[in-house]
Amino acid sequence: MLIDARVASGLRDLPPSLAKPRERLVDQFRRVFRSFGFQPIETPHIERKEVLTGKGAGSEEVLRQIFDVVNTGGTLGELALRFDHTVPLARFVAAHINEIGLPFKRFAIGSVFRGERPAKGRFREFTQCDFDIVGTEGVAADAEIVMVIYQALTLAEVPRSTIWLNHRGLLEALLDGISARDRGPAVLRAIDKLSKIGREQVAKELTNPEKGAGLTTDQADHVLDFIVAGRGGSAVLDQAEGLLGNHDSAKTAFHTLRTIRRLLDESGVPEDAVMFDMGLARGLDYYTGVVMETTVNGWEKFGSISSGGRYDNLGSLFSQRRIPGVGASIGLDRLIALLEESGHLSGHASASGVVVGQFSGVSLEVPFQIAARLRAAGITAECFPDPIPIGKQMAYGASRGYRFGLILGPDELSRGVFHLRDLITRQESKDLPIEQVAEIVALKCAEQNQSE
Amino acid sequence: MLIDARVASGLRDLPPSLAKPRERLVDQFRRVFRSFGFQPIETPHIERKEVLTGKGAGSEEVLRQIFDVVNTGGTLGELALRFDHTVPLARFVAAHINEIGLPFKRFAIGSVFRGERPAKGRFREFTQCDFDIVGTEGVAADAEIVMVIYQALTLAEVPRSTIWLNHRGLLEALLDGISARDRGPAVLRAIDKLSKIGREQVAKELTNPEKGAGLTTDQADHVLDFIVAGRGGSAVLDQAEGLLGNHDSAKTAFHTLRTIRRLLDESGVPEDAVMFDMGLARGLDYYTGVVMETTVNGWEKFGSISSGGRYDNLGSLFSQRRIPGVGASIGLDRLIALLEESGHLSGHASASGVVVGQFSGVSLEVPFQIAARLRAAGITAECFPDPIPIGKQMAYGASRGYRFGLILGPDELSRGVFHLRDLITRQESKDLPIEQVAEIVALKCAEQNQSE
Repeated sequence: MLIDARVASGLRDLPPSLAKPRERLVDQFRRVFRSFGFQPIETPHIERKEVLTGKGAGSEEVLRQIFDVVNTGGTLGELALRFDHTVPLARFVAAHINEIGLPFKRFAIGSVFRGERPAKGRFREFTQCDFDIVGTEGVAADAEIVMVIYQALTLAEVPRSTIWLNHRGLLEALLDGISARDRGPAVLRAIDKLSKIGREQVAKELTNPEKGAGLTTDQADHVLDFIVAGRGGSAVLDQAEGLLGNHDSAKTAFHTLRTIRRLLDESGVPEDAVMFDMGLARGLDYYTGVVMETTVNGWEKFGSISSGGRYDNLGSLFSQRRIPGVGASIGLDRLIALLEESGHLSGHASASGVVVGQFSGVSLEVPFQIAARLRAAGITAECFPDPIPIGKQMAYGASRGYRFGLILGPDELSRGVFHLRDLITRQESKDLPIEQVAEIVALKCAEQNQSE
Repeated sequence: MLIDARVASGLRDLPPSLAKPRERLVDQFRRVFRSFGFQPIETPHIERKEVLTGKGAGSEEVLRQIFDVVNTGGTLGELALRFDHTVPLARFVAAHINEIGLPFKRFAIGSVFRGERPAKGRFREFTQCDFDIVGTEGVAADAEIVMVIYQALTLAEVPRSTIWLNHRGLLEALLDGISARDRGPAVLRAIDKLSKIGREQVAKELTNPEKGAGLTTDQADHVLDFIVAGRGGSAVLDQAEGLLGNHDSAKTAFHTLRTIRRLLDESGVPEDAVMFDMGLARGLDYYTGVVMETTVNGWEKFGSISSGGRYDNLGSLFSQRRIPGVGASIGLDRLIALLEESGHLSGHASASGVVVGQFSGVSLEVPFQIAARLRAAGITAECFPDPIPIGKQMAYGASRGYRFGLILGPDELSRGVFHLRDLITRQESKDLPIEQVAEIVALKCAEQNQSE
């Protein structure tokens, strides 16, 4: 009996049409990470479960979504699949601190697993590209993380995106200003929904004493006025400063945000690529300083494609040493989905390379010889493996993205010449000696090949 | 209470010192795979368990080592982690055959999981780099797979390795010659141990009627003579042909092996890089034609670093369509371990890039400006995040593999000049204007940076 060839629910295969642009994006991200001095680390996909479920390691929702792992002789509950790269980073730093030294800049790219309810565009295995600077509280590190996001998305030709910054200190000041610091979590939960449910509904949630934050109408208005006006360029910082007055943590926060903006200016990051959003509340239960999210202009419905922030103490679960840091993560799957839907994923795979046809009655030696010669010149070359009709071989070549087909029949063999077919224009150059084939192909393909 | 930061038994972290050379190797492998027209695919780490445990999907030993995966609401036994890339390939091809078309050349690089008993150098998660050509029986495909192994190991600067070839047809002929075809599996198991336990012990196993193959002493001698003499260049094929006579599957096998060797000759693969080993028996219960293994000369104790072969029917578990193919896999972890022990892993990471020092009293803008300028010129540049003593910043730079340190104190700032310290030679060039810094660094670093 045959076994059903489907993947498990919530998982998926990536055929070359999806795997190739992913590879290209990841390569570009790694190039940017490296250019800032980040170094790769790898941690196992499987962790001891207590590492993943320690206090504060993940939200209750995430912990419910953990995949347990068990094998013969093992006990259920001992092992589990990682659900992000942050907890493994904390464990890694605690375990290897003497070997790696601080500050430590690492990136980690790989699959993470969450047993979310399967839904369109939501997968139970997805790829996160994380980069963090641990062991420093310097604002230079915060600025660098923002720059890395900007550079990575720019190199990847992601359409115009905006990195939104906020700072935990501002929301603390805001809450203190209305004497409602103890309502922090409920207020954050409510304002996080502003773009989805609108001001009126958020106001209801802020004032709801049972399910919401239980603020007075005045308090809720104050919060909402501050947030609604607090979205834009540096001017919103001035305005917000007027509203929050002389609160200490607000002062620190404004200084940090302004310094970051100034460092970005010096580094050539445009004004409108990094803006401020006083309503950015995601992760403020976890982050202790700057927080950031990234949306693509016009495609905000996809949510944030890169999020991060500063944390006070990365390793508190595993070590008594205090290890501050700042980092962010690019969600590769969401980004790819966005690029696909916005039409930016195509156009990359320009045709290049050569498929070398196989003719019945022509020994394979000659095709192999010329393919090896082309590859030595940096050109992708494939010998078609079977002597089926040559038109089918060329159609295969075109479908695989080859630019040229090379044809050598018995007659050409005796004269030592080839036909070279351009699989895009369908033009055919006949009776070329081998030197000329290599020259033409190299000229038209080498450049594209390089740029892949 | 603190949580122990250790990884689970049989798993491991890869710090930058190991993750960097891995990245480089994988990049090189991918470049070779692409140059032959292989395209990437990705399948999930988690498969439905019945996909992994179908008849013939894995040996009994491998099936015992499967890791089950389960999450809230799921049932134990439904999901499991993949233990290789071959079974997922078979499922992928069956599921996507209309979309991908045949022949189909794919590579897949990623973690696979086996709950082996933890031991030195044996890990429960390891990386395999697979490449296969499915949908063809042409010998061109067999030759290409061998060439890919050769090219990949050459580009990766693996010390002189030998790809050993054999063919199932030869062992069938050998067994038919002594009328012992029904003893095939036991004979294969015995001769597979020749290099480990020696001729005498193998002879005992071949003649043992209970635990072994139960051959007569003459039969065992015949098998062992054939195998012991059958290791070397093309001459062993002539010799073996004399011994096996006119057996049909032997004739086909010799023709295939000779054709592969001829195609390799035309492609510039040296004679001694690909040899024949009539005793190569691993996987012959699964492979149906050519089989191959790869050892590094002088480091044979590490076993095969790349193995593969031709199979008749990849998708038989999932599809009624017959899908022949040929492929191989490079075992990245074993290769890395070998390179490390043989001293070939170091020397790659030549120092490059610049760490820009931070001085108390000097605004961060200037370091950020120059770092951005260096990165725009393709040079890795990092601003040290804290104004600690400059000697410590430079020591950090040297430990992270930077070639240069750039120093800008308050005095230099006022004169608009920098100190550039070569972190290897410890030479310092003082009072350089920024243009000259960029020029010197670009000259000394750009080339190394390119080659990474």
